[in-house]
Amino acid sequence: MKTINTRRSIRKYSDKEVSEELLSRLLTEAARTQTMGNMQLYSVVITRSDEMKAKLAPAHFNQPMVTQAPVVLTICADFNRASTWCRCRKAEPGYDNFLSFINAASDALLYTQTFCNLAEEEGLGLCYLGTTVYMPQMIIDVLGLPKLVMPVATITLGWPDENPPLTDRLPLASFVHSETYHDYTPADIDRYYAEKEALEENREFVKINNKETLAQIFTDIRYTKKDNEAMSAGMMEALKRQGFIG
Amino acid sequence: MKTINTRRSIRKYSDKEVSEELLSRLLTEAARTQTMGNMQLYSVVITRSDEMKAKLAPAHFNQPMVTQAPVVLTICADFNRASTWCRCRKAEPGYDNFLSFINAASDALLYTQTFCNLAEEEGLGLCYLGTTVYMPQMIIDVLGLPKLVMPVATITLGWPDENPPLTDRLPLASFVHSETYHDYTPADIDRYYAEKEALEENREFVKINNKETLAQIFTDIRYTKKDNEAMSAGMMEALKRQGFIG
Repeated sequence: MKTINTRRSIRKYSDKEVSEELLSRLLTEAARTQTMGNMQLYSVVITRSDEMKAKLAPAHFNQPMVTQAPVVLTICADFNRASTWCRCRKAEPGYDNFLSFINAASDALLYTQTFCNLAEEEGLGLCYLGTTVYMPQMIIDVLGLPKLVMPVATITLGWPDENPPLTDRLPLASFVHSETYHDYTPADIDRYYAEKEALEENREFVKINNKETLAQIFTDIRYTKKDNEAMSAGMMEALKRQGFIG
Repeated sequence: MKTINTRRSIRKYSDKEVSEELLSRLLTEAARTQTMGNMQLYSVVITRSDEMKAKLAPAHFNQPMVTQAPVVLTICADFNRASTWCRCRKAEPGYDNFLSFINAASDALLYTQTFCNLAEEEGLGLCYLGTTVYMPQMIIDVLGLPKLVMPVATITLGWPDENPPLTDRLPLASFVHSETYHDYTPADIDRYYAEKEALEENREFVKINNKETLAQIFTDIRYTKKDNEAMSAGMMEALKRQGFIG
């Protein structure tokens, strides 16, 4: 994983295909990731057809990567397969509850990240779409996900056709705590966020949006309370329809 | 990541220390993982003291790795730091909702898995404790986690002192779907689970537990409906107390 220190999200892809053989190998290797009770509580829906990409795009706010990438992967928390297995084996599954969603979502996300690490090491470029959990019902309908299957991550994948700059990260001390959690004082915040706030691109971002601070870009534009609350309700509703919440 | 095909969870560790320098490097490198809006919505609490390990152990059903491992990492979904930043910058954070928990938990789990892949490539051994979400309130109390911080993963870490056999995995076809989700027929289940059910260790497991099928081990002993429902309620309650659910 020598690539880790130079990784960046890739949103533009060349015309070169991602072969079925390579994709299958990476998807297989990623399954070595630890999983709850060795149940592998995830499924991956592979989208290659233009028609299906076009159907998925609105759920991702029509970000161009969805239709431009040769491959789109929707990774799902999946307790349907394990529950079907149980019912075929004289066992009564009890996985229609919130904890089981969290367990399956964890399995799915850990699997996803090993896949990302492997794909990037192979030279592939990818973008993780956080939008997957914004309007999950649309994705559920498009992909035909049955009960106890819930989309949790989307990856657009292809060979890179751009080389964007590395993005900044907070210093280690800002997110690591020794023995117990030490809450943040205003002085801590100043120290930890100074570099991010001083970046030319972020200062420009604040200016063109007519804001006073970078944080206001997040609270007032990118991730607002109103949107978060509406999407929380949508996510809960989808979890109910998928059978994970009573 | 040549190690991926031979990885196994390690539950016994040698006396050799995990140096602060190595741990810091791996925790820093893992932060290259993609993160929502580059907010890095996670925190890591490092436990090295015997006293704190002993306090954490009951939350993990006293699995011996917790007290035996030189290092225990509790990775948390954290919207507290970002929200504190907002409040220090004349911005009103709106992250006290369920979607924000899902976003932060995703960030935390993706970060966790890159860390695991890096650590294993370094030769370290680790075990992922799924028990973190079983009784989260105990962990919250022991580590002093404030509102908008929720533990989602625990890693016990050290230099391996065992070399357990590789565990089985389902075939790729069982968890990959092309274009849309194809639900499982009883014949699919037979085909996909045949190898797992035929394993000598699993047959023995069924026998000594006086069960008819391997699936019954999961539904009747390891992950019962009753336990799942009780722990779902506990998880929801903890999410409320941490401010992620109204």
